[in-house]
Amino acid sequence: MDNSQRSTLIALPNPHPDRKYEVNCETPELTCLCPVTGQPDFANITITYTPGQFIVELKSLKLYLWGFRDLGAFHEDITNQILIDLVELLGPEEMLVRTDWNVRGGIKTTVSAVYPE
Amino acid sequence: MDNSQRSTLIALPNPHPDRKYEVNCETPELTCLCPVTGQPDFANITITYTPGQFIVELKSLKLYLWGFRDLGAFHEDITNQILIDLVELLGPEEMLVRTDWNVRGGIKTTVSAVYPE
Amino acid sequence: MDNSQRSTLIALPNPHPDRKYEVNCETPELTCLCPVTGQPDFANITITYTPGQFIVELKSLKLYLWGFRDLGAFHEDITNQILIDLVELLGPEEMLVRTDWNVRGGIKTTVSAVYPE
Amino acid sequence: MDNSQRSTLIALPNPHPDRKYEVNCETPELTCLCPVTGQPDFANITITYTPGQFIVELKSLKLYLWGFRDLGAFHEDITNQILIDLVELLGPEEMLVRTDWNVRGGIKTTVSAVYPE
Amino acid sequence: MDNSQRSTLIALPNPHPDRKYEVNCETPELTCLCPVTGQPDFANITITYTPGQFIVELKSLKLYLWGFRDLGAFHEDITNQILIDLVELLGPEEMLVRTDWNVRGGIKTTVSAVYPE
Amino acid sequence: MDNSQRSTLIALPNPHPDRKYEVNCETPELTCLCPVTGQPDFANITITYTPGQFIVELKSLKLYLWGFRDLGAFHEDITNQILIDLVELLGPEEMLVRTDWNVRGGIKTTVSAVYPE
Amino acid sequence: MDNSQRSTLIALPNPHPDRKYEVNCETPELTCLCPVTGQPDFANITITYTPGQFIVELKSLKLYLWGFRDLGAFHEDITNQILIDLVELLGPEEMLVRTDWNVRGGIKTTVSAVYPE
Amino acid sequence: MDNSQRSTLIALPNPHPDRKYEVNCETPELTCLCPVTGQPDFANITITYTPGQFIVELKSLKLYLWGFRDLGAFHEDITNQILIDLVELLGPEEMLVRTDWNVRGGIKTTVSAVYPE
Amino acid sequence: MDNSQRSTLIALPNPHPDRKYEVNCETPELTCLCPVTGQPDFANITITYTPGQFIVELKSLKLYLWGFRDLGAFHEDITNQILIDLVELLGPEEMLVRTDWNVRGGIKTTVSAVYPE
Amino acid sequence: MDNSQRSTLIALPNPHPDRKYEVNCETPELTCLCPVTGQPDFANITITYTPGQFIVELKSLKLYLWGFRDLGAFHEDITNQILIDLVELLGPEEMLVRTDWNVRGGIKTTVSAVYPE
Repeated sequence: MDNSQRSTLIALPNPHPDRKYEVNCETPELTCLCPVTGQPDFANITITYTPGQFIVELKSLKLYLWGFRDLGAFHEDITNQILIDLVELLGPEEMLVRTDWNVRGGIKTTVSAVYPE
Repeated sequence: MDNSQRSTLIALPNPHPDRKYEVNCETPELTCLCPVTGQPDFANITITYTPGQFIVELKSLKLYLWGFRDLGAFHEDITNQILIDLVELLGPEEMLVRTDWNVRGGIKTTVSAVYPE
Repeated sequence: MDNSQRSTLIALPNPHPDRKYEVNCETPELTCLCPVTGQPDFANITITYTPGQFIVELKSLKLYLWGFRDLGAFHEDITNQILIDLVELLGPEEMLVRTDWNVRGGIKTTVSAVYPE
Repeated sequence: MDNSQRSTLIALPNPHPDRKYEVNCETPELTCLCPVTGQPDFANITITYTPGQFIVELKSLKLYLWGFRDLGAFHEDITNQILIDLVELLGPEEMLVRTDWNVRGGIKTTVSAVYPE
Repeated sequence: MDNSQRSTLIALPNPHPDRKYEVNCETPELTCLCPVTGQPDFANITITYTPGQFIVELKSLKLYLWGFRDLGAFHEDITNQILIDLVELLGPEEMLVRTDWNVRGGIKTTVSAVYPE
Repeated sequence: MDNSQRSTLIALPNPHPDRKYEVNCETPELTCLCPVTGQPDFANITITYTPGQFIVELKSLKLYLWGFRDLGAFHEDITNQILIDLVELLGPEEMLVRTDWNVRGGIKTTVSAVYPE
Repeated sequence: MDNSQRSTLIALPNPHPDRKYEVNCETPELTCLCPVTGQPDFANITITYTPGQFIVELKSLKLYLWGFRDLGAFHEDITNQILIDLVELLGPEEMLVRTDWNVRGGIKTTVSAVYPE
Repeated sequence: MDNSQRSTLIALPNPHPDRKYEVNCETPELTCLCPVTGQPDFANITITYTPGQFIVELKSLKLYLWGFRDLGAFHEDITNQILIDLVELLGPEEMLVRTDWNVRGGIKTTVSAVYPE
Repeated sequence: MDNSQRSTLIALPNPHPDRKYEVNCETPELTCLCPVTGQPDFANITITYTPGQFIVELKSLKLYLWGFRDLGAFHEDITNQILIDLVELLGPEEMLVRTDWNVRGGIKTTVSAVYPE
Repeated sequence: MDNSQRSTLIALPNPHPDRKYEVNCETPELTCLCPVTGQPDFANITITYTPGQFIVELKSLKLYLWGFRDLGAFHEDITNQILIDLVELLGPEEMLVRTDWNVRGGIKTTVSAVYPE
């Protein structure tokens, strides 16, 4: 899996680096393609983190997530990949990425990955 | 209780075996027969696990669950059996199987089994 | 489409034939097979009617609906067929049959048929 | 069906007989026995009416509904009987009685009767 | 029933007397006393009207409703009285007053009065 | 308080005595009488337990709960009594009994008892 | 009441002027000032219309609604004014404007205005 | 703050003093006066406790709470006072009192006090 | 606006052409591009119709809706276009197409088109 | 970021300084401006604290929050600033400030800060 939009992500300096607090971003607008059938999949994604020296710039996060629109990606893979990209960019103290996928074959699937494990 | 569909389950290699994350699958489409009366029972089933070396292939999970359609099964038995089958197949670090059964005799029943105990 | 259970339906005399009133029966336990793929479909069914000389016996209705379990049936067909069977049996003044089917291919489908049209 | 508590109902003079308004009473505490099996049934009951010269005294309504506790009664019968009793007592301009019964055999049943028809 | 606070109600000129529109005011803070037992009753009240030449001043409406706090009042009576007071004050084209009372004796009661009838 | 139905409860052998799992049974159909006024009370009851050597047979549980219908019982007493009866019968590893009672005097009451304490 | 932002509204040609259809816009982000106390008020606004020759450009609608931020305005007045501004701009076949205001003095207020009356 | 109704509270012997269990009482019918403005305030109150030798008699609790109706009381004060009164009366092992107050000045306030701290 | 997928739509013969009934299809998986900014938009779409001689084949409907994924389309335009395409294909007696779009600029937009007007 | 209203906050003596309890204040009426675009942002804010020697006066809190209306402020910054201001004023044992911001760019953002960390 490769998402060429990864470079669109922008980190801003944390305005309160001396404080421990939590940021939560959520959008129902994550869509990608099934790597087997090529058909669209849709998910609600939640990103929660405790900032270290950086916070994510929201518009760049929006563009980054849109970058998966034409990409083939398994549920488990894309969730971990987003976590890895954001941890690399932001160096957070803690981060959770959870994706809730629309029903396929009568089954609703959710994947949750955390840092550090 | 014997479910000849057990062999329909397929394990895929975990794309991120070095990371600890959680997968949750849920469907309201589990149905079997009451082993005493032969009448249909219906349940919502939730399967949550932390993958080890394998993840479950979703289409095979759908077929596996459909395999209970003509089987006589007690609530407590079928829940533990599904847990046992999936643990054997996937070797997860942790797994929870919960079944929520439709009202019978005015009573709603839920059964939850976990691995490891 | 043919449902050999049709004969299981039982009509009881309306205890208040001189009054106009409404009966509503609802169950999430309607399941049949897709006539194309052979895979199970699941629906919530609502039956609402104004009795004429007869009301439906509830246990026989339960058995009748269970009779579709191994039958191949299109959504639009089964809904109209249930309406036709019940109108023939009960001779109601008015009847509505509505089926709400679980998501398939990302789409949720509902079919509603009424008598008289 | 006979409910010896019918005489417990008390009518009060309508404090605003010259105005048209609506009164709605609802309780989840209606219970009776199945006339076939002798097993308890439970319902939520809603009574809505436009008073004529009388309104129902609420404590007497509570006692009247408790009077069904040991009575065998079919869903369709009890609903119409309550309507008939209250119409006879109060002489309302309009009245609706609706009973929502707990699930039996996987089916939820509702019965609604109105006056005048 | 007499509410000495009736004089606290203030009418303001309708800022758009040439237009037909609807105003809805709702509060869960209506309380009075049971005229039989002296015990407190509580209701949610909804007032909906199409203004004529006047609209009600909201602070005066709040004070007017508080005026029932120490008053003995039957559900049916207080609802009609509030409608009568407001119709007299505002001369609306249409008005609905609905009161939803907390459960007493297991029964929830709602009273709705409209103008014109 | 004495419930002669206690003997109606039936224990079945646990089909998976070597596994630790949880069973939850819930019904809104618990009713008894107030020991002071003789008036009916209604509750929703939840029973959750981790089986030891036995599980409860559901139809016998339904009959047992119906046995309180004509019994005078305080909220706190009946909840503990049901726990005591079921613990004696089943020898569970853990059990919770919770009863949620309908509003009386404007107050909603819930009682929860656990084993072992 | 005067809203200098009125000129920010932009009308676009209706892409299907030969068809009758409905457009609904809703935002919880309407805020203005109380003309008496100068304190902020907040509302959810719903605008529903059947376009004639024009539809409203959404970004200009957003700017127009933001224009009320520093304006003193009564609930009834602002609702009618928005209707009047949009009717003048778009010449719709039908339009409804509804504002739901946050609680003040324990009372929640809603105002609905329609065109044509 | 002084509530002369404190003496209305009645303690009953705990029917199961040898068991540890929890009682929860909740009512939306707590009202008092603002000590500054004299205007009514309204709250939902939740009382949860693990009984020692006594349980509270429900009717006396109802009367005790009604005793605040004409009393001036700050949110923080009344919540702690109710806890203190009930702890003194019942000698519970644990107790929580939570009050949820209706919106004032756009702000919803909740106060929670526990024993032992 | 041009959707090359229009030809993917398949009509099936109505199995009950002599009866009047209603079919409702709903999916949250409609996405297209903003024709001005090129950014993705997302909508929930509801299609309700009374079949004439034909019903829509569900898999072809899914593919048709996926065909908008890379298309620039205004909310009002796409809604009417889908209605026009389906009316042309199916010749229904009545049809409603409604699209509910995700929030943009703080505003949620819904468009509803019907046939016949 | 500077909020000249900070001086509007008023601390009152804690009426029960010897007890540990929790106060929760919540309002959907926080609005400020985006420091980049100058466009309004809206949030629901929750403030939860365990008082030390002081509690916050509610009217002053309302005025303080209104003070952000014309201020440019990033989500992360304003949340921490409110926490810092209130901790300085009240010297609480614990405090949580959480802001839930309306959707921007399809993304909903929440920020939570606690004291002590």
